[in-house]
Amino acid sequence: MNFDIERTFEILERTPGALSALLTGLSDEWLLVNEGGDTFSAKDVVGHLIAGEETDWVERTEIILEHGVDRPFTPFDRFSFREDYKTASLVEMLETFRDLRSKNLDRIRGLEIDETKLDLEGTHPELGKVRLRQLLATWAVHDLGHIRQITRVMAKQYIDAVGPWRQYLRVLDE
Amino acid sequence: MNFDIERTFEILERTPGALSALLTGLSDEWLLVNEGGDTFSAKDVVGHLIAGEETDWVERTEIILEHGVDRPFTPFDRFSFREDYKTASLVEMLETFRDLRSKNLDRIRGLEIDETKLDLEGTHPELGKVRLRQLLATWAVHDLGHIRQITRVMAKQYIDAVGPWRQYLRVLDE
Repeated sequence: MNFDIERTFEILERTPGALSALLTGLSDEWLLVNEGGDTFSAKDVVGHLIAGEETDWVERTEIILEHGVDRPFTPFDRFSFREDYKTASLVEMLETFRDLRSKNLDRIRGLEIDETKLDLEGTHPELGKVRLRQLLATWAVHDLGHIRQITRVMAKQYIDAVGPWRQYLRVLDE
Repeated sequence: MNFDIERTFEILERTPGALSALLTGLSDEWLLVNEGGDTFSAKDVVGHLIAGEETDWVERTEIILEHGVDRPFTPFDRFSFREDYKTASLVEMLETFRDLRSKNLDRIRGLEIDETKLDLEGTHPELGKVRLRQLLATWAVHDLGHIRQITRVMAKQYIDAVGPWRQYLRVLDE
């Protein structure tokens, strides 16, 4: 499937609602566990997505449109949210994410991005030259990848509880 | 995490809403693609989950409670839904899934399953002896695994569109 900005918005618009439906009201046994070490819990993922709305996707879009390849993107701090949202409840964080995402999509729509703009390039601090269309595709795939991560982290809490069914449940051994 | 029936209901109750929020209104470009061959599209997954509500989880629970290990479970047909829901729209299927899931959870609650019942065994046609608590844990993990599958199938549509970001997006190479 080729990149299409409207198809991309479809994914980006739905992520906050999907996460709210999946996570609101769950016990901390599901929300706060991770896969060990520095890995993310379900709640951490929401914090990470908020940080992306605050400092990553739209900022990088504007850098590409205003400065092209001349100004490299600011490296994204994957763990800043841990300090910023240390005392926030999951429900507050889901609301923050929904609001930021909605505002950011309005901002992106306001930029009237056409095929010519989608081909513009920026400089990623590690990956080098990247195009705006690749940044926006990555934004949507990043959402889907983190929903997937949440389901895996939660599923693994039952890795022993499923008994012999484990061999049918690939999610448990990823 | 040890099996807990109330924690298990938490997951099972949320899946229909999460899938509705994730999928309702998406274009067919996201909903109808699969990973090749006999693999499932997002819409197929919803059909598969409906079939599980119709013929698998509750039926097997009742077989364990009524017959123990003496009556093996009926093997689950993973592809029956393709015929049954060939002409149904995704929205109809999501509604069907939500209704069946809600009724099935009411049925399960009506069985007043306590710790003694959770330890009862049944006979799986391939896995042999399994306990009721393992069946119910598997039901929840199966939900999570299929949400994960949907995000992976959709994300892969942008495997080329993300360009150099692919190396950061593990979901694309699973």
